Amino acid sequence: MIIVMQKGAAETQIEGVVRRIKELGLKAHLSRGEFKTIVGVIGDETLLRPELFAGLGGVESVMPIMKPYKLASRDFHAEDTVLEIGPYRLGGSALGVIAGPCSIESEASFREAAVAVREAGATLLRGGAFKPRTSPYSFQGLGEEGLRILQAVGAEVGLPTVTEVMDVRDLEAVARYADVLQVGARNMQNFRLLTEIGHLRKPVLLKRNSAATIEELLMSAEYVLSEGNRQVILCERGVRGFEPSTRYTLDLSAVPNLQGVTHLPVIVDPSHATGRRDLVVPMALAAVAAGAQGIMVEVHPCPEKALSDGPQQLGFEAFATMMKEVAAIAKAVGRTLQTPVKQTS
Amino acid sequence: MIIVMQKGAAETQIEGVVRRIKELGLKAHLSRGEFKTIVGVIGDETLLRPELFAGLGGVESVMPIMKPYKLASRDFHAEDTVLEIGPYRLGGSALGVIAGPCSIESEASFREAAVAVREAGATLLRGGAFKPRTSPYSFQGLGEEGLRILQAVGAEVGLPTVTEVMDVRDLEAVARYADVLQVGARNMQNFRLLTEIGHLRKPVLLKRNSAATIEELLMSAEYVLSEGNRQVILCERGVRGFEPSTRYTLDLSAVPNLQGVTHLPVIVDPSHATGRRDLVVPMALAAVAAGAQGIMVEVHPCPEKALSDGPQQLGFEAFATMMKEVAAIAKAVGRTLQTPVKQTS
Amino acid sequence: MIIVMQKGAAETQIEGVVRRIKELGLKAHLSRGEFKTIVGVIGDETLLRPELFAGLGGVESVMPIMKPYKLASRDFHAEDTVLEIGPYRLGGSALGVIAGPCSIESEASFREAAVAVREAGATLLRGGAFKPRTSPYSFQGLGEEGLRILQAVGAEVGLPTVTEVMDVRDLEAVARYADVLQVGARNMQNFRLLTEIGHLRKPVLLKRNSAATIEELLMSAEYVLSEGNRQVILCERGVRGFEPSTRYTLDLSAVPNLQGVTHLPVIVDPSHATGRRDLVVPMALAAVAAGAQGIMVEVHPCPEKALSDGPQQLGFEAFATMMKEVAAIAKAVGRTLQTPVKQTS
Amino acid sequence: MIIVMQKGAAETQIEGVVRRIKELGLKAHLSRGEFKTIVGVIGDETLLRPELFAGLGGVESVMPIMKPYKLASRDFHAEDTVLEIGPYRLGGSALGVIAGPCSIESEASFREAAVAVREAGATLLRGGAFKPRTSPYSFQGLGEEGLRILQAVGAEVGLPTVTEVMDVRDLEAVARYADVLQVGARNMQNFRLLTEIGHLRKPVLLKRNSAATIEELLMSAEYVLSEGNRQVILCERGVRGFEPSTRYTLDLSAVPNLQGVTHLPVIVDPSHATGRRDLVVPMALAAVAAGAQGIMVEVHPCPEKALSDGPQQLGFEAFATMMKEVAAIAKAVGRTLQTPVKQTS
Repeated sequence: MIIVMQKGAAETQIEGVVRRIKELGLKAHLSRGEFKTIVGVIGDETLLRPELFAGLGGVESVMPIMKPYKLASRDFHAEDTVLEIGPYRLGGSALGVIAGPCSIESEASFREAAVAVREAGATLLRGGAFKPRTSPYSFQGLGEEGLRILQAVGAEVGLPTVTEVMDVRDLEAVARYADVLQVGARNMQNFRLLTEIGHLRKPVLLKRNSAATIEELLMSAEYVLSEGNRQVILCERGVRGFEPSTRYTLDLSAVPNLQGVTHLPVIVDPSHATGRRDLVVPMALAAVAAGAQGIMVEVHPCPEKALSDGPQQLGFEAFATMMKEVAAIAKAVGRTLQTPVKQTS
Repeated sequence: MIIVMQKGAAETQIEGVVRRIKELGLKAHLSRGEFKTIVGVIGDETLLRPELFAGLGGVESVMPIMKPYKLASRDFHAEDTVLEIGPYRLGGSALGVIAGPCSIESEASFREAAVAVREAGATLLRGGAFKPRTSPYSFQGLGEEGLRILQAVGAEVGLPTVTEVMDVRDLEAVARYADVLQVGARNMQNFRLLTEIGHLRKPVLLKRNSAATIEELLMSAEYVLSEGNRQVILCERGVRGFEPSTRYTLDLSAVPNLQGVTHLPVIVDPSHATGRRDLVVPMALAAVAAGAQGIMVEVHPCPEKALSDGPQQLGFEAFATMMKEVAAIAKAVGRTLQTPVKQTS
Repeated sequence: MIIVMQKGAAETQIEGVVRRIKELGLKAHLSRGEFKTIVGVIGDETLLRPELFAGLGGVESVMPIMKPYKLASRDFHAEDTVLEIGPYRLGGSALGVIAGPCSIESEASFREAAVAVREAGATLLRGGAFKPRTSPYSFQGLGEEGLRILQAVGAEVGLPTVTEVMDVRDLEAVARYADVLQVGARNMQNFRLLTEIGHLRKPVLLKRNSAATIEELLMSAEYVLSEGNRQVILCERGVRGFEPSTRYTLDLSAVPNLQGVTHLPVIVDPSHATGRRDLVVPMALAAVAAGAQGIMVEVHPCPEKALSDGPQQLGFEAFATMMKEVAAIAKAVGRTLQTPVKQTS
Repeated sequence: MIIVMQKGAAETQIEGVVRRIKELGLKAHLSRGEFKTIVGVIGDETLLRPELFAGLGGVESVMPIMKPYKLASRDFHAEDTVLEIGPYRLGGSALGVIAGPCSIESEASFREAAVAVREAGATLLRGGAFKPRTSPYSFQGLGEEGLRILQAVGAEVGLPTVTEVMDVRDLEAVARYADVLQVGARNMQNFRLLTEIGHLRKPVLLKRNSAATIEELLMSAEYVLSEGNRQVILCERGVRGFEPSTRYTLDLSAVPNLQGVTHLPVIVDPSHATGRRDLVVPMALAAVAAGAQGIMVEVHPCPEKALSDGPQQLGFEAFATMMKEVAAIAKAVGRTLQTPVKQTS
């Protein structure tokens, strides 16, 4: 950590900063420039917070030089983390495709979607049972009945499953029924939920909040990792921008940006990011070209009749066509889609 | 709701839209322009969602003409909601001042702050017991011991209290100890928490998420209101912007903007919005001039030693000076600060 | 255009709106709902501005239903515009690759770069002569001497050239030396410059301003088109976002989003968008996968010694490697890179 | 400037950085931490750019510790700059009020507005002759005829005048007719225009671009200052945000933020920032409370009939009422409005 003193800071103020550093068990290193004095902190700054110094007299600015996350960092773990989820891998060079309807609306329609996405080559089945909805008057999901359907259909078609957990009180149930727990963008900084998930030994798919920086996303992952659960998947799903014609602004540069600093798998959700069916496919292909280790796409038997997010869900045919293009792009960048397993019965 | 059909939409597509409207128990009204056909929906659209139509064939865009919130709207309740919190009012022309340290660090230091802010004219005492922290390695608050201190000191100095609840599992305890429950910006769309708070009959201070629109904030308020709890205070505390020298961008225009469409009290938190002591006072004064019905300011006996948010907390003297300026501005815009009650013993 | 009247708007206010519509030579169509009255405007609204109605008494909101641009729209010109630039095409299914150094620093180094990018398969040579720099103390470009070098080297290697024009007073000179005129992001709404360029009959590469919506970009294109110059190329180069680790946030969804509403070619500049060499290649590949009709990449003989934008420029080897990957992705999405022409001597 | 080397950077890479520093005539200072090596640059870094180092091998990040602007900085000029504009002052504790219609539409209506704003206490008369309009089909202003009206009416009512210059070719004419030159937000980084204005000795009102940081605004001011024109007024007029119900997001914290680092006067334009009449007055009051040294408000004889920006212009009565509130707030924060001069005849 580098502490820049104000021009003309008093000697006693500089001493105050040095004293605080020593109190924290670290060493200080002074560098007196022509205009300003700089104090360097020597030692492990992982546990330091800039605010310990920013409020001291005479301090102009505080610049961390180490990342505030540790377990999520490539400095700590250089190799890509590769997760085993059912018969598939996610991370490294393995490309995962998560697909299924936004919400589970009925067992029949969910089965229909599950069969279709497996046939087209998906490796993980998604479906919402507990739905975060902006309006209290919107469809809120089937709840535990939805979880039961998810598990039953997943087993039937031979795909591992992922679904969102919104409430610590549901955690035990969701973990019992699903293979991967999803933490939604709105809960990315629900720190109590993250801590509880950290106690499990199940993969968690952590979505980036629409106002979160790359570093904040990694700090949220650190909550899970620091409790002992090392199976975290990061998901870019759009940041809040000013463009009125899309729901969010998909920040695809987050993919290589994250991959440069973390070993965790990074996937992209073009459905929620854009909110528009005509943009989902181009953005899914772009995500794969950018190096994403997975994509998550909403697929519905009849998007026009979906109870939630109809305008962004793909029909079966559009999804199957997209998968062929995904495969071609994946090959172009030296990756291969994993072979779908046969139905387990 | 207005549904604009694409140029050249087929007659059967127009009929499809009309059929869907009728299925929902509403009436359709067609207007065929030179270039495009417009379908108007007649009836109560409060429960309609644009996505029910956006996915239909031939639809170009869907424009709601009624607000998606109801109980929070001035259309539903024209007069300002004025809450009674202990011996003070909040809302309408009454100006509330919420002050206290970011976190409760010890009973002694909290008492010191409480006495100081009451003397300077605060009407509500704040102090964090459960702290949402970006890093798992930062101070997380004293927990229930903090709640106990909050209640004891509040009673001692005669100020009602407000503190944050982060987890549904803590709700019962927080509601037992505090007079007002705060929902932090990161939990603004924790819908399960909002629903549970809706079952209480206690005031809730709901902070705007840094990526939330005015409408999304009001939809979150609607979650609480629709469960029967009508005591919601809205708080602007900065939106995520691109300026690197402040923590957030305080959106003060949200104050009159919200007051135009809702009857709920609107307050401003300049401390979290700016993250900088030198900006807190000017922004607090600006908030009062803009018509805010309250301000919430962090005050600490010794900001330089605070365990959290040191750089943005005011010392006692700075707070007392600010309160004199707040009083002058309040008077200039036809409002008066409420008289502090005497110590209750 | 749809005009929504406030709940309880007076009959005279509704009449006022209808009168204004008639004054403008258009027809009004009233629809009285249960709660609100809606006034539809029938006729060509292209020349209408919402503000003609937004200020009238009793008006709640004004919603345009037609796009405010005309010549840039697919409604006006359904087929993709394909430009012929020297021996290459840009637009439709032809993929253009624009490459070269940020600034022209000397004839020798520019020639070196030109030869390298042509060998690797670029179809257009870029190089800045007039440089927009945030600081008055930074290198401002070689000016007209730079233009001369650009033209000479372009002719030598057989590549058409593109360079930025910052000032109407330079327009004549830039148009004399270069094949394509670039309007930088900071000048996207320099309407006087756009109008003058509209009088030329040369291709213009118009960069999206970092705060411009899709619609604003198209309105700026409309300035050029409406003066008679139909050769406009649109370029996405990042929007202003809150992420501190990249210079801008590249909005790749703008590519299919624009292509849905306009016939003009859309290209992507990953160099300026990210400002980081490690992100340029993944984002270039992603742009091609998303359907961009061209990419523009900064290439320098020795990026570490560049006088401007060193950290984002690629070396020759990195560019050549990228071009192989670009070709593979292009093929995967059914496109082919154009064959480089032989040196013209 | 602090250069942080990557963990494990080679000794030759560190030497490369040190060599570059010495080549630039500055001294290097090494600090080897437990994890990373830090290189400090000693000497005047004003002319250094981070990119001179960011591209070097082994460099992780480059952190400037001095501001990149000099003449605009309080370090260079500690006292507030106070401008004399006709019989009024702007800057320091003097509060200026700039008012008038968005565009000059006719001599009669402009005179009517000028008389009204002078009577209500304005100190500077605004009126657009050259209008930057998003659409080529919108009213573009009266041009030089507008300038003539501006000058004639200003002289008549005894108010100095301000108007926008959009094009270097108009600069001479605008400078001949008007007392203050305005550079609009869209031209904030039109560096050629800024340089030319720097050659004049007239006050310039420089508006912050909607995507510009505080530092970028000051760098643009530096373009003018470094050419010798020291009369620069900075104007906050809203940044691009995600809220759909206002045109921009007014960043009022920019006022004290700027005043902390620069000696130049800072004013606020609530009309363009919000685009809504109901928000203009609260934001004007808030600006004064926040310490702005001036406000700029659009006033029109009949806002409902304005040829541009009707929805945001105030009528005469609303403006006069606002001025009384402005005076009360100004007094509350220890300032006084300047006495309007008598008509000069």
